[in-house]
Amino acid sequence: MRTISRAELRKASADQLKVLSDSVREEIFRTVSACGGHLSSNLGAVELTVALHRVFDFPRDKLIFDVGHQCYAHKLLSGRAPLFHTLRKEGGLSGFPKREESKYDVYGTGHAGTALSAALGLAKARDLRGEDYAVIALVGDGSFQNGLIYEALNSLKLLKTNVLLILNDNGMSISPTAGGMHEILEELKGPARERGVRLLEEFGLSYRGIVNGHDFGALLPALEEARGMLKEGSVLLHVATRKGQGYPFAENAPLETHGVSPVPAGREYAGVLGEELSLLAESDEKICAVTAAMTDSLGLRPFFERFPARAYDVGICEEHACVLAASLAAGGMHPYYAVYSTFLQRAYDEVLHDVCGQNLPVTFLVDRAGVTGADGETHQGVFDLSFLLPVPNLTVWTPKDLTEFRAMLRASGDFLRPLAIRYPRMGEEGKGTPFDGKFEVLHSTTSDIIVYAAGERCIKIARRVLERAQGVGMDFTLVNARTLKPLDREFLLSRPEKFVLTLEDNVLAGGFGDAVRRTFTEEEKGEISHFVRNDARSTLNREVFSFGYGDNFIPHGEVESLMRRFGLSEEDIFAVIRGLYARG
Amino acid sequence: MRTISRAELRKASADQLKVLSDSVREEIFRTVSACGGHLSSNLGAVELTVALHRVFDFPRDKLIFDVGHQCYAHKLLSGRAPLFHTLRKEGGLSGFPKREESKYDVYGTGHAGTALSAALGLAKARDLRGEDYAVIALVGDGSFQNGLIYEALNSLKLLKTNVLLILNDNGMSISPTAGGMHEILEELKGPARERGVRLLEEFGLSYRGIVNGHDFGALLPALEEARGMLKEGSVLLHVATRKGQGYPFAENAPLETHGVSPVPAGREYAGVLGEELSLLAESDEKICAVTAAMTDSLGLRPFFERFPARAYDVGICEEHACVLAASLAAGGMHPYYAVYSTFLQRAYDEVLHDVCGQNLPVTFLVDRAGVTGADGETHQGVFDLSFLLPVPNLTVWTPKDLTEFRAMLRASGDFLRPLAIRYPRMGEEGKGTPFDGKFEVLHSTTSDIIVYAAGERCIKIARRVLERAQGVGMDFTLVNARTLKPLDREFLLSRPEKFVLTLEDNVLAGGFGDAVRRTFTEEEKGEISHFVRNDARSTLNREVFSFGYGDNFIPHGEVESLMRRFGLSEEDIFAVIRGLYARG
Repeated sequence: MRTISRAELRKASADQLKVLSDSVREEIFRTVSACGGHLSSNLGAVELTVALHRVFDFPRDKLIFDVGHQCYAHKLLSGRAPLFHTLRKEGGLSGFPKREESKYDVYGTGHAGTALSAALGLAKARDLRGEDYAVIALVGDGSFQNGLIYEALNSLKLLKTNVLLILNDNGMSISPTAGGMHEILEELKGPARERGVRLLEEFGLSYRGIVNGHDFGALLPALEEARGMLKEGSVLLHVATRKGQGYPFAENAPLETHGVSPVPAGREYAGVLGEELSLLAESDEKICAVTAAMTDSLGLRPFFERFPARAYDVGICEEHACVLAASLAAGGMHPYYAVYSTFLQRAYDEVLHDVCGQNLPVTFLVDRAGVTGADGETHQGVFDLSFLLPVPNLTVWTPKDLTEFRAMLRASGDFLRPLAIRYPRMGEEGKGTPFDGKFEVLHSTTSDIIVYAAGERCIKIARRVLERAQGVGMDFTLVNARTLKPLDREFLLSRPEKFVLTLEDNVLAGGFGDAVRRTFTEEEKGEISHFVRNDARSTLNREVFSFGYGDNFIPHGEVESLMRRFGLSEEDIFAVIRGLYARG
Repeated sequence: MRTISRAELRKASADQLKVLSDSVREEIFRTVSACGGHLSSNLGAVELTVALHRVFDFPRDKLIFDVGHQCYAHKLLSGRAPLFHTLRKEGGLSGFPKREESKYDVYGTGHAGTALSAALGLAKARDLRGEDYAVIALVGDGSFQNGLIYEALNSLKLLKTNVLLILNDNGMSISPTAGGMHEILEELKGPARERGVRLLEEFGLSYRGIVNGHDFGALLPALEEARGMLKEGSVLLHVATRKGQGYPFAENAPLETHGVSPVPAGREYAGVLGEELSLLAESDEKICAVTAAMTDSLGLRPFFERFPARAYDVGICEEHACVLAASLAAGGMHPYYAVYSTFLQRAYDEVLHDVCGQNLPVTFLVDRAGVTGADGETHQGVFDLSFLLPVPNLTVWTPKDLTEFRAMLRASGDFLRPLAIRYPRMGEEGKGTPFDGKFEVLHSTTSDIIVYAAGERCIKIARRVLERAQGVGMDFTLVNARTLKPLDREFLLSRPEKFVLTLEDNVLAGGFGDAVRRTFTEEEKGEISHFVRNDARSTLNREVFSFGYGDNFIPHGEVESLMRRFGLSEEDIFAVIRGLYARG
């Protein structure tokens, strides 16, 4: 697609804009087909984005996306068309708005609900600095369920600044949108619309809409009008779009085409979850499932279909989902809260305050843990061990394969305390060794080196290193560190090896390696676990080498490549072992 | 106060209920005067609580408080009057609802916005288990600004269960309530009330109110009616109360009497913040301040008065406050977000995703870090180092005294990257040594022992241990570990001492001690900090002993006593040093 100047855009007729939109749409379709990405949400926002670029003067005016699943057309229209074929590829364009990528991306996103807050902050900064530009938050109706949006709405009048909030309403979040706010928005489309309009005005927004988001004849004047109104106050422009617009198969299957990615080798942990949780729930009526708008990606669809009374999708509300799980547990149920590692960050306080602070039987199913790849910085699941391991009362497990995941899920049924099971997206079936809540020796030898690997990915790397080491006459003991909290202290302290390696798909700070090092010197002391060195079990006899991620955000790219680049390199691990062998 | 049975309550006349309320109020006043606690909020909820106990059958019916600043009358009426004099004292009654304390406390709280979510979970569990009881969420209007409440409201219809939501509206959160939702609630009191009523009905709540919350003649029939309506659906009962009711000085000064505590020795860091931030802002127009309803407790009042255009109190919305700060920074400002350590937990994702993920110049002022004492588990600030240290791009400092805090604040003005300054409530002035961003040697000797103490409290403990050690002819080097991230690596690695002690007012998991241990073996490697042991600077030559908190929630009590009991015992530290001296 060729680059279009703003001057051209300003002069273009509605027909020409339509042609431009078609070529943007084609480019998006072609690129997502090749690189993966968010298809249907982006297809739905094409005309709206073209119209925004026509009416507003970017980057002077500021456009902020919520989540960012609708930013592709914006990227194509802001000078990045020549690079668009690199979308989501390592070193290429990000799939989300990113400040360092372009001055047209004024505020980076990835998680839901931030856009209106961010627009208010930018607008306020503009006012304080005596500048003059329009700030626009483009928010999908799915994000409208998130508490952050409400907090921002609530402070709109109070902050005394003007923003344009565009509600891109396609009736879907990732799953179909539901809930009270959704009904209010739906009502805006019908005869009782005055009620919803007044509500929004209450918060300090002048309401305009609904505008057909695929019709330039309606869009352009509506945006022009809204732009003018910004002199006087904040505006909500309600735009109706169709997810997947222009590609009938995407229009008809918006769920399936929300995120499109080349399916990696192996099987999804989510699939196993769907099967096993349903089996467990058959014989245990206390089991229920909670999700924040991710029923399908987490594999919960079979559970939702079989046990609709015990399955709750509360929309993009990770915090509320967590408190709901805690209180279901307080009421005698055993809830499973399935969530991506990166989105569990949103519920960190509730994990501490509601679930673990009250020692309630909630099982967290932490999917997409570790490096997740093409979605980049905002989606890597590399902090969960660091924020979960310090939480009292919480137990943390990570399976070595899908088979062990099944065993852990079965064990979780009777585990009536806070528990988190952490796993990456893809896995393989295994041999089906029993799960007894302790470390498992996968390969035993008498060398002075022992490797503790946490989770399927790290175990695979360790196995490859082992094979390579054995090929040159070296050997080490390999352990499946499947219980990350509490650690298998007895095992750790009983092992004679002088050289200890830890492998984790998480940042090193506050992760598994840190816990191992601490354990070597820790001594239980009365009611609390003090940290007084025990001479008999001294760390003095051991050297600990940890592999994981360093102190930086990991950008988008290919999973294995990022893991290698950012800390889990087979080569580096092998080199350390070779060095130790030389010394030992 | 004598214990009242439910039978007595059921029979009591309105006059007798009034007498009971007066004695409850007296008891609260007497106890808070002696033990500290939340005064005005509790005084305002007395009649409402008495009426709830009269109309509902606790603990069969379930009462959930939001935050919990209004639960004292409930404690007095649920068999805990004989223990009420132990309120907030170590081993005594908690100042918040707590499951393990009483079967009348069905859901523990401390942070805002959780009650409606929790009520929905309990009610859903009730339905699933075929039980029959009423679930009541008692929420102050301050909490109504929080995003969690909105997320719960949004899923109310969807969850298809019935709860009674009582809005205890006193027009105040901790600071006066403001914002769009506040205006909607205010409108419910006036002629335009239909609008607000319809909005709430939209979410699935039948609205009843406004009821005078100090008049049994109005309260009792309203609660009876609401109780009956619960068969059909969820109900919002809007009750108007007066914060501080019954004690004119508390009515007239609800801010000052919200939390009452015996003022500890020393001066508040908050006071220094108020002075210094205003000074900084005089010469730097980019500086602004953000808070989530804690203007006074954080010391921001002087700043708010002098720079109203650059000061934002957004209500109890920690997440929105954080995104607002991030976006003000993206717009060219330098925002300071002041927040208690425990409440920053709510904005963990925004710290990562919005501020540090974009490397924006936001300064976090993390007050009430470390053990905070009488408020207990939900308010201890002992996790912030663990959740902040793993965050890339973030710098973390902690001052040794108020004077150094001033110096850090001055340094922060030019520090245009994400920065967190962490400090306890109380401090003392110091000598005013310069702050250069490195560790500072406070006492130097040639012994084989070095103690790294993080923050004023740990340094004080270390100084006492030093004095004691010197008294018996021992000595150690004492270092002010004021830059916790990045650590002063050069200093750490250059020191010859064989025995290293770390002291931190935080849980050990993922804290300062872990970071020190890691640093001894870490090696910078290219773009990332790998964790490959550097032989020359081996940890082998060092033994690290860490003092901090173990793997448990720390209950309420007296600060110094809790610190001693849970991990920072002068005695234990001295014992380790004596042991090392014997070996060295």
